[in-house]
Amino acid sequence: MGQIHEECGVFGVYANETRDVASDVYYGLFALQHRGQESAGIVVCDDGVFSVYKDVGLVNEVFDRGAMEKLGVGTMAIGHVRYGTTGTDGRLNAQPIVVNHIKGRMALAHNGNLTNSSVLRERLELSGDIFHTTSDTEVISYITTEKRLTEPSVEAAINQAMYELEGAYSLVFMSPTKLIAVRDPNGFRPLCYGKLPDGGGYVVASESCALDAVGAKFERDVLPGEIVIFDKDGVRTIRDHCGTAKRTMCVFEYIYFARPDSFIDGCSVHEARIRAGRFLAKEHPVDADVVIGIPDSGLDAALGYSMESGIPYNIGFIKNKYIGRTFIAPGQSSRENQVRMKLNPIASVVSGKRVVLVDDSIVRGTTCARIVKLLRDAGAKEVHMRVSAPPFVNPCYYGTDIDSHEHLVAYSHTVDEIAKIIDVDTLGYISVENTKKIAVSDMCTGFCTACFDGNYPTDTEYASKKNRFEEKISLGKGKGDRTDE
Amino acid sequence: MGQIHEECGVFGVYANETRDVASDVYYGLFALQHRGQESAGIVVCDDGVFSVYKDVGLVNEVFDRGAMEKLGVGTMAIGHVRYGTTGTDGRLNAQPIVVNHIKGRMALAHNGNLTNSSVLRERLELSGDIFHTTSDTEVISYITTEKRLTEPSVEAAINQAMYELEGAYSLVFMSPTKLIAVRDPNGFRPLCYGKLPDGGGYVVASESCALDAVGAKFERDVLPGEIVIFDKDGVRTIRDHCGTAKRTMCVFEYIYFARPDSFIDGCSVHEARIRAGRFLAKEHPVDADVVIGIPDSGLDAALGYSMESGIPYNIGFIKNKYIGRTFIAPGQSSRENQVRMKLNPIASVVSGKRVVLVDDSIVRGTTCARIVKLLRDAGAKEVHMRVSAPPFVNPCYYGTDIDSHEHLVAYSHTVDEIAKIIDVDTLGYISVENTKKIAVSDMCTGFCTACFDGNYPTDTEYASKKNRFEEKISLGKGKGDRTDE
Amino acid sequence: MGQIHEECGVFGVYANETRDVASDVYYGLFALQHRGQESAGIVVCDDGVFSVYKDVGLVNEVFDRGAMEKLGVGTMAIGHVRYGTTGTDGRLNAQPIVVNHIKGRMALAHNGNLTNSSVLRERLELSGDIFHTTSDTEVISYITTEKRLTEPSVEAAINQAMYELEGAYSLVFMSPTKLIAVRDPNGFRPLCYGKLPDGGGYVVASESCALDAVGAKFERDVLPGEIVIFDKDGVRTIRDHCGTAKRTMCVFEYIYFARPDSFIDGCSVHEARIRAGRFLAKEHPVDADVVIGIPDSGLDAALGYSMESGIPYNIGFIKNKYIGRTFIAPGQSSRENQVRMKLNPIASVVSGKRVVLVDDSIVRGTTCARIVKLLRDAGAKEVHMRVSAPPFVNPCYYGTDIDSHEHLVAYSHTVDEIAKIIDVDTLGYISVENTKKIAVSDMCTGFCTACFDGNYPTDTEYASKKNRFEEKISLGKGKGDRTDE
Amino acid sequence: MGQIHEECGVFGVYANETRDVASDVYYGLFALQHRGQESAGIVVCDDGVFSVYKDVGLVNEVFDRGAMEKLGVGTMAIGHVRYGTTGTDGRLNAQPIVVNHIKGRMALAHNGNLTNSSVLRERLELSGDIFHTTSDTEVISYITTEKRLTEPSVEAAINQAMYELEGAYSLVFMSPTKLIAVRDPNGFRPLCYGKLPDGGGYVVASESCALDAVGAKFERDVLPGEIVIFDKDGVRTIRDHCGTAKRTMCVFEYIYFARPDSFIDGCSVHEARIRAGRFLAKEHPVDADVVIGIPDSGLDAALGYSMESGIPYNIGFIKNKYIGRTFIAPGQSSRENQVRMKLNPIASVVSGKRVVLVDDSIVRGTTCARIVKLLRDAGAKEVHMRVSAPPFVNPCYYGTDIDSHEHLVAYSHTVDEIAKIIDVDTLGYISVENTKKIAVSDMCTGFCTACFDGNYPTDTEYASKKNRFEEKISLGKGKGDRTDE
Repeated sequence: MGQIHEECGVFGVYANETRDVASDVYYGLFALQHRGQESAGIVVCDDGVFSVYKDVGLVNEVFDRGAMEKLGVGTMAIGHVRYGTTGTDGRLNAQPIVVNHIKGRMALAHNGNLTNSSVLRERLELSGDIFHTTSDTEVISYITTEKRLTEPSVEAAINQAMYELEGAYSLVFMSPTKLIAVRDPNGFRPLCYGKLPDGGGYVVASESCALDAVGAKFERDVLPGEIVIFDKDGVRTIRDHCGTAKRTMCVFEYIYFARPDSFIDGCSVHEARIRAGRFLAKEHPVDADVVIGIPDSGLDAALGYSMESGIPYNIGFIKNKYIGRTFIAPGQSSRENQVRMKLNPIASVVSGKRVVLVDDSIVRGTTCARIVKLLRDAGAKEVHMRVSAPPFVNPCYYGTDIDSHEHLVAYSHTVDEIAKIIDVDTLGYISVENTKKIAVSDMCTGFCTACFDGNYPTDTEYASKKNRFEEKISLGKGKGDRTDE
Repeated sequence: MGQIHEECGVFGVYANETRDVASDVYYGLFALQHRGQESAGIVVCDDGVFSVYKDVGLVNEVFDRGAMEKLGVGTMAIGHVRYGTTGTDGRLNAQPIVVNHIKGRMALAHNGNLTNSSVLRERLELSGDIFHTTSDTEVISYITTEKRLTEPSVEAAINQAMYELEGAYSLVFMSPTKLIAVRDPNGFRPLCYGKLPDGGGYVVASESCALDAVGAKFERDVLPGEIVIFDKDGVRTIRDHCGTAKRTMCVFEYIYFARPDSFIDGCSVHEARIRAGRFLAKEHPVDADVVIGIPDSGLDAALGYSMESGIPYNIGFIKNKYIGRTFIAPGQSSRENQVRMKLNPIASVVSGKRVVLVDDSIVRGTTCARIVKLLRDAGAKEVHMRVSAPPFVNPCYYGTDIDSHEHLVAYSHTVDEIAKIIDVDTLGYISVENTKKIAVSDMCTGFCTACFDGNYPTDTEYASKKNRFEEKISLGKGKGDRTDE
Repeated sequence: MGQIHEECGVFGVYANETRDVASDVYYGLFALQHRGQESAGIVVCDDGVFSVYKDVGLVNEVFDRGAMEKLGVGTMAIGHVRYGTTGTDGRLNAQPIVVNHIKGRMALAHNGNLTNSSVLRERLELSGDIFHTTSDTEVISYITTEKRLTEPSVEAAINQAMYELEGAYSLVFMSPTKLIAVRDPNGFRPLCYGKLPDGGGYVVASESCALDAVGAKFERDVLPGEIVIFDKDGVRTIRDHCGTAKRTMCVFEYIYFARPDSFIDGCSVHEARIRAGRFLAKEHPVDADVVIGIPDSGLDAALGYSMESGIPYNIGFIKNKYIGRTFIAPGQSSRENQVRMKLNPIASVVSGKRVVLVDDSIVRGTTCARIVKLLRDAGAKEVHMRVSAPPFVNPCYYGTDIDSHEHLVAYSHTVDEIAKIIDVDTLGYISVENTKKIAVSDMCTGFCTACFDGNYPTDTEYASKKNRFEEKISLGKGKGDRTDE
Repeated sequence: MGQIHEECGVFGVYANETRDVASDVYYGLFALQHRGQESAGIVVCDDGVFSVYKDVGLVNEVFDRGAMEKLGVGTMAIGHVRYGTTGTDGRLNAQPIVVNHIKGRMALAHNGNLTNSSVLRERLELSGDIFHTTSDTEVISYITTEKRLTEPSVEAAINQAMYELEGAYSLVFMSPTKLIAVRDPNGFRPLCYGKLPDGGGYVVASESCALDAVGAKFERDVLPGEIVIFDKDGVRTIRDHCGTAKRTMCVFEYIYFARPDSFIDGCSVHEARIRAGRFLAKEHPVDADVVIGIPDSGLDAALGYSMESGIPYNIGFIKNKYIGRTFIAPGQSSRENQVRMKLNPIASVVSGKRVVLVDDSIVRGTTCARIVKLLRDAGAKEVHMRVSAPPFVNPCYYGTDIDSHEHLVAYSHTVDEIAKIIDVDTLGYISVENTKKIAVSDMCTGFCTACFDGNYPTDTEYASKKNRFEEKISLGKGKGDRTDE
């Protein structure tokens, strides 16, 4: 519950015959909507012809009947949902991007953030290349096109390009004949694929819940560093980059971003959160009457806390399901009202009780403070806050957009101070150490926890938070004082 | 989860000084949105001048900035949300209605359904009255105006009118100087009022959750048969009709309609549903591994089942929170997809498990069957369905819109047959007898369970389901063959 | 060019078989759009069932595909376009209105303004009737319903009602089996009917251009005081009220409101305006090089001035055809820009020339002054303004909404003063006397020129400009101090 | 009246201080709306920071209050309106385009069509460049960026780029410090500039009517081949390309595209059309009673015909001013209705008369045939059609989008055959020879009449009509069989 944002979700489908692949992508993106709400886009490939439609808005806002009709049928399609930082022109940066290059055309959807894009971009511009957006995705397409001039295939070009790209990238490429899934060697962001029923083809998605959404059967996660090619000959793989870097999956995907019904690198997100709740109960036990979670993000960890502690779980809040993205509270004290409109405590559950309140994060602390006040007004005798993520104190360079330092309550306050600010009787965060243990599977061998402990797994000398590049409407002084003579 | 609909929610505010009362109503209606999603309306009274705005759509769709500005400030306001049957012109029937009559003007919002409106209407038309809508609300305003010709005040006129009205009505009236709350003698539909903070005035609402939404303190439920008047002299009451009928609160309000965070007639809705779940566990025990509820409606009863049975509660489904009212699934098999898009099981919770699945109703059975299939596809070994309402087999004449007989699976099938249709291992409904025991308080002395057992608490000879009157766009052959010569 | 507004246009169709009558009304209303741009509505009658759809907006905005589908097919339909005064709730007052009464139901669309509606309304309210709107139309429906209690048919009831109604009314009624056209005895507002091709039925419209729009053949004007009934037996007429009052057709219909391609009471509107231009040339000759009109309203009279004077006609302005109703000029000096955006002079036509500039009215004078300045900036040597209507100095009680006195430049200034204000070399208005001669036909035997000379053809003691009744959102203090006790 | 479309209008402003330059562009584009109705865009430069907003829709649809606020203030801005061929994704191809390159950034708006863009594009792609759109504008920006790597300034780079560009281009460039206007050496498309009042700066526009729209004073036309630079030092010019090609201004700008109130290359468009009408009267005289034009395109030439022939001019049709771009006629026979809804003859003008009907083109003939039928139905005794453009028989490669051959009635029929098809008594087109004489000024020394006579002024070996490149949504099989391996 706060101002932390994943940047993207990607989806792709390779069908064995011409059909309504756009609808598949629609359902897939709809299931990935939590990964990005600013813009949505789909590109369909019908016998080599690309049709594209993208716009700002939620998937079901962007893709009305007219838009779906424009996209038409095809054998392949890819799609993208994107979160955008305030002030940028979401429409311009909407993905997938489609480019024409010397060997044909290519569409590309990207989740993640490069750490050397400014270096690559400078080199490209010095050779006369021009950029329409500030996004890394355009850098990736240039590097790939450059390699394509000498490489015999698009996948070989991608393989070469990966020697130059640094940072986080889960990609879905579409050429006129192939669908290609790519994951960076660190495996920062999730990516998996599955089979459509009845041998209908293949589906690639950021999370497995999107495979479920189209009735596809989960096949496996794309390996860190792997290139998976889907074409008329079936599935092939290039693994030159596998094992070239330490696995550093973003642990926040398990804690916060991903949907609980997804499996990532072999581990159920729901179970990881239950486990986080259990760790919290061990690390920060308390004598209390009831455990409740803040909907929807805190419910799994609250259940875990209850299981481990034996304190009964109950439903503590009703979330008004009519609160939508575009909702604006009228009247003056609108920020306060916004919380009250969204959440209402169930007085019979908390009145006169010692309450354990679980959520997955505290960002600014203001929303949290209002929620605690609602509980106390409803009669809660004690409120014990438990948080299933450690405090954020460092910026992320791999695709997560966190509030700037001055807004992060944990950056400038101790736990005790925060407890006072949000007015709880006790406050406990899960430790970074235990955070690394919440996801359990053969593939879960390493995590990026840089936002908690500052241990960045890659060189970040030239890296910067994406939104530093994006001033005003997408084409600001990114390159500062460079004004043309 | 199905095609059962409450018809309305009402809200009113009496403020001690001129201010943004429209925003109060906005917040109140937003909290009552679950009681009606077709249209919304607000009438503000500023020094005797009425401003009205209403339209089809959700509260936050209808009341954009422009609409709120049009309403302006005032000392009183009332509002309404309405569910409308398919095909009727929601705009025409949107409430509150405002009428000018001999003694001034009056605004009126209504929740419920009269059982003698056709009789009253015929009498009124025979005296030259004309009707713009098919709604009972217009009948109530005529009867009240008729009485007002000879009575000294609007509340006295309402008191007289109540001798003629039969059926279910929770009303909020607004005259240029008074706010008046009225509940029918049977008390079919809920109605309560509270105090604004700092002596700011009074608030009337269908459910207490709407009092919470504006920061008002719950004062008490309006008694069945009571008229409560709010004006410059404070609160007064007329109780001539109290005790003239048996209390027959709609039990379905507790099971299904009302929000779990509301208290109705002294009983928490959440606790009533927990209790329903406990009764289910006693009536239909089963040996199983996990209890899950269908979100959001089945969660409370599932928790109750778990508490009583000792079988662990878990989160079984993720509900896609971006599913909105206007969502349309593209592609061909859209109905099936609609379920899959909305709900996805958490495989790690149900795979290989014997699952108790709880919901509050089975209407047509089709949605339920699809949900069961999702569970089985996710690996559930057994599925035991438990329903916290008895089977519907009778029409409601008091304001609930249920599917017609031919669509109600319980009407034409035994429990065993239904179990086969929805493909569950066992199926159990709560008994009607226990249903009457789920709400516990001093005021909960009697319930209407007619939709389950056919015991209608009032004469229904001239009653009819509202939607029989409404054919096509609101002005159909209501009176059948009566065509003007 | 100014702030003068007609209140309404009406249209009706009676078809000999079930078909898409809503589309006929759509085309008819679209052709009458100039008579009212605030709201539009259509009611379709299909075998006695009425379907209604109305909303604020232009015809093509209100009636999108969804709205047309809702209306469906039928054998009869009526429609209405309305101009609304600022601040009133257009949606509430949108017509046609549909009412249910003792003998069935009735739909009604009205153009004009009663002068005794306040008297009638008071009598009706004293008998217990209630009013939803402030419009005269509701009064008419009550009076008609009242008569219907004792009369054998709806047309007989209308005939009786006409003994009570005073003022301007051109009406289209629809009962479940009949379409009825009614025009007040004075014939203030136009109304005519025609035949659909191939014996398809009949069409009633405010102006003949709407008959053209549906391919109907003009049959004749409805006579002042006449009731024309269209039903399965063909066309019948009741003429009890014909000849009971002097003919006083609104002369401003010819000068300003009606479309030039319409014929009203036997006279072409275009020819009437040509004639007005000729009179202007006779009354106010001038030595000049070119005659131009302000588009679109001044073009016909400019051509007439050219014909009579022999001074060449030319096109003096280009009107930007993308200026729409909802257009808002950005930036600060928006009012001035609004004129410049709408009109641009053709410099080659006016530069160095003595220009005669013709328009149909001067209301506030500000727009006119800006247009004259545009001409001078484009090089016009002299500007001689000629106006094809006399100065407005009196309010209209028959359905025309003119600016209040303080805004009418003619009310407080002499012609010489106005000439200075708008900066023209000479200024000439047509005389009231000649105005009465511009429409020439057998039926054109008398006109209402009250807005010019104050000779009101009916008693106006209880009359008032409609907008005095309408304060704030439609239900203001119309009846002032009457607040309910 | 037909299916001929100009591709674009451009506008730019250089202000001497920071202010609301976006509004200037708004007004300018609004005046150029007739040159393109599919999309509109504005880029504002504020101290080197570019803000961009563009979308499909008319200027006043795209630039609502929110969009204008996003653009903010600045010292420079450029804008563009675009016509797009059916099926292409207007949003993707909307201009201006903004690119980041090695020396900073650049915005660019383009009117016209290159004839060697496929050649240039192939060369660029072979060096690794990628293209996001199919538009020539992207080619121009690449070529300019390429030159900029070695040239000392953006204007020098443009000057070098012009050695490579062939075909029609009127361009407005914006660098962080300069506004630059460029016109191709042939001068196919118009471009001019003017001064803002009070030394406020400079304005560049496709047509002089857009200078009028912002109150700017026309300074002069940009010369064919000229580069005009506006920056803090005032106005400079580079004329290396002036006189390197024969002047071949598109004559269709005078006949059809441009607004009558514009001056192009020293000649009034209105006067050119009057002259076209006069030539028509000389070439195709006829004995008739009245001359009328089809609004709005045929009015000027009709007036010219009347002046030359002495046959009286009159207003023959009323055009419904509520017909908007998005208008959709309901019902079945919608195409026929569309004409009837748009135009209605004034029967009193044409009934019993021998009518000369003037328009500026006949494309498919179907619309024209319907209009002639309307006249005959209104009683016209004879109809003599006169067309102020010669028959189109050749494709345009310079930026005009004409229907394909099979739809052009003149391509496959003689004048006599066309006269029969549209059912006129006589039909006369202006001759190509006289067409070249309609625009008279010192600058009007040569015209492109290729669409009439096939004399293409440049090499068209590699040229193609733009829409051949654009199949399906913007990224079709433009390069056909080139599919990536």
